[in-house]
Amino acid sequence: MSKQDIGQMVTEMAIRVKEASRALAALSTAVKNRALIRTAQLLQEERSFITAENEKDLAAGREKNLSPAMLDRLELSDKVIDSMATGLREVAALPDPVGEVTDMKRRPSGITVGRMRIPLGVVGMIYESRPNVTIDAAALCLKAGNGVMLRGGSEAIHSNLALAQVLKRGLEDAGIDSEVVQVIPTVDREAVTCMLDLEDYLDVVIPRGGEGLIRFVTKTSRIPVLKHYKGVCNAFVDRDADIDMAVEIIDNAKTQRPGVCNALEGLLVHRDIAAAFLPVVARRLTEKGVELRGCPRSCSLVPDMTPADESDWGKEFLDLILAVRVVDSMDEAIAYIDRYGSNHSETIITNSYPRSQRFLREVDASAVMINASTRFNDGGQFGLGAEIGISTTKLHAYGPMGLEELTTRKFIVYGNGEVRA
Amino acid sequence: MSKQDIGQMVTEMAIRVKEASRALAALSTAVKNRALIRTAQLLQEERSFITAENEKDLAAGREKNLSPAMLDRLELSDKVIDSMATGLREVAALPDPVGEVTDMKRRPSGITVGRMRIPLGVVGMIYESRPNVTIDAAALCLKAGNGVMLRGGSEAIHSNLALAQVLKRGLEDAGIDSEVVQVIPTVDREAVTCMLDLEDYLDVVIPRGGEGLIRFVTKTSRIPVLKHYKGVCNAFVDRDADIDMAVEIIDNAKTQRPGVCNALEGLLVHRDIAAAFLPVVARRLTEKGVELRGCPRSCSLVPDMTPADESDWGKEFLDLILAVRVVDSMDEAIAYIDRYGSNHSETIITNSYPRSQRFLREVDASAVMINASTRFNDGGQFGLGAEIGISTTKLHAYGPMGLEELTTRKFIVYGNGEVRA
Repeated sequence: MSKQDIGQMVTEMAIRVKEASRALAALSTAVKNRALIRTAQLLQEERSFITAENEKDLAAGREKNLSPAMLDRLELSDKVIDSMATGLREVAALPDPVGEVTDMKRRPSGITVGRMRIPLGVVGMIYESRPNVTIDAAALCLKAGNGVMLRGGSEAIHSNLALAQVLKRGLEDAGIDSEVVQVIPTVDREAVTCMLDLEDYLDVVIPRGGEGLIRFVTKTSRIPVLKHYKGVCNAFVDRDADIDMAVEIIDNAKTQRPGVCNALEGLLVHRDIAAAFLPVVARRLTEKGVELRGCPRSCSLVPDMTPADESDWGKEFLDLILAVRVVDSMDEAIAYIDRYGSNHSETIITNSYPRSQRFLREVDASAVMINASTRFNDGGQFGLGAEIGISTTKLHAYGPMGLEELTTRKFIVYGNGEVRA
Repeated sequence: MSKQDIGQMVTEMAIRVKEASRALAALSTAVKNRALIRTAQLLQEERSFITAENEKDLAAGREKNLSPAMLDRLELSDKVIDSMATGLREVAALPDPVGEVTDMKRRPSGITVGRMRIPLGVVGMIYESRPNVTIDAAALCLKAGNGVMLRGGSEAIHSNLALAQVLKRGLEDAGIDSEVVQVIPTVDREAVTCMLDLEDYLDVVIPRGGEGLIRFVTKTSRIPVLKHYKGVCNAFVDRDADIDMAVEIIDNAKTQRPGVCNALEGLLVHRDIAAAFLPVVARRLTEKGVELRGCPRSCSLVPDMTPADESDWGKEFLDLILAVRVVDSMDEAIAYIDRYGSNHSETIITNSYPRSQRFLREVDASAVMINASTRFNDGGQFGLGAEIGISTTKLHAYGPMGLEELTTRKFIVYGNGEVRA
């Protein structure tokens, strides 16, 4: 296809999804839930079709020598298909955020003013590799009353189109116009560039993938972007921390699942507790296979630590590696987090009430914690039900984004003939 | 200055404001209020200095043959100076949104999760002409704990710099680092382009001015933008409207202040009431000097109406002109609003309960009203205290933006050693 043809195709898809999303915004919760549950059934009934289409992507991936990790993420195994179906049923069970009215107040003019929660409109998702995002993200967008335009990774094109086909049948079986979901059927990158220019039809873009993809989307888009670049989470073990508690939290945050964005990448230790704490935590982490990279003071307390170099501070290892630094004060800890953190998740381990409160107030991150593992920064753990991503920029949403973050609020006014004086 | 020098200057200002905004975020309400009130005093004490600097801009404006309306907007008269001082005292009297904690809930894991309201960080304001925005916008940003980088119109450069100087003294007298306010001291447009690229230092940009400025900012910015392009507000007089009420509302919405964004630009009338209503409202509006431009059916009912052409539908007249159209149904009215409205303010005049509720739910605008004038869409009227603008895009804020919309919420977690299972 020529650039121009791609532009025209993407624009026409965007017009159709925008148009169809209007009716979706007014649909009852029951109809939306019926579509989600029907899609869950169809995913399981159409397992062999989905697997066959997925196999085309896997074969092409093997041909291109994708890494085993990449192929693993690409595979729609029975387990992944079942988990998509379960996810759909869970989203159906969540309360519908649309239509909630709050803050109704009588004003001196006589009018009553409040806010009504409404869908954002159309969400653009741009994501890499994992094809299950096609179902997971679409389910949340639809439940919140939004149309959705999906552009997955080129390696997963057959899988994504197969899943979209099943989803569209689920929508139609529930009586919903299936144009509310669009999957871009070409792997040409021009389609993304074009999509990011369609501010008249798309209300927000959510990129999910590596930092390169997210920077490209942010730089190119004329549409607002909800994103996080990376997760560089730190723990500050304060001078009067409970050492046993600190060891458990650091161990959990670093090793329970090291490849995710809320895993720990930096450990800051107050100098007054460093001699007592560092050897203990080092022993535990080393047993679990973690490589520690320390500042000179850390290395002098734990001689078999690797000396850190400048590039280790603020690095997203996503692996069993941890940067360790001794700090002189809470000021220094907070300054380190400001400089090297990524506004994702930061935790303090302390028994001091005033110091816990200062950390909570002054640290700028989407989730700031006291005496808890950074691994809790997650929509499910925080009670949002499910999440479509985590935002580390402050506009609209900061932290995990659930159904509510896929909506906005308009003002509503009940009057009785009032005019402005 | 060369492009490169401007780039360096703007970047250094942005670094300084970002740095200073950290301390501002943690300041007590009392200190922020003291700065606002002190600035109000200083504005009145420094009246002759401000007026002298303003006179330089006015003289240059007369030289350049600016229109009387432009010169009027540029002038810092005694009345405008007093109103800036009053505005500062009013913002000081508003409740401080920062630090509010809500939604604290215990989770099954044992952690308690909630949200704390925090400043956005640094707000970039790009505005045209009226120099009082320098004080009004900065006051709201500072009260919400944000640093602010201001770039006003080139015609107002001396006035803006004089006001900034007064504001910086007010901050210093209250013990606040005056780097929290930056006014770009050059009229070169390169400074705007550079500012819009500084996503590491600015958290949000709010443009205020004509549609051209706002489109330029949206297209250029890598920073999220809160904006409204224009206000094309409509009223739908339903078949069972109270005719007297409808006349009062239409009159008020069109004529009370025709040059503002929440003034009425389009009137839709249900065909069943058109013959009874249109001649009455036309008489009232014509008496007030309003030119009516009607569809063929409207013109047949009110013979001295001007026939509308296609460009009149959805036009922001900002003048005593009103586009009038007879519609067959509420469906047609809503479709018209979808097509020609600007997501700003839309009102229905009706005595039907189900039809009022349908309009409220289905119309997509920042404020949807029943039996009230569109002129109420305003931060003060809605109870926000003051507004920094009105957003007609849905992310973060939809409608008037007050102090709360200049903040965001982070998640906070109280734990007792919990780890993720």
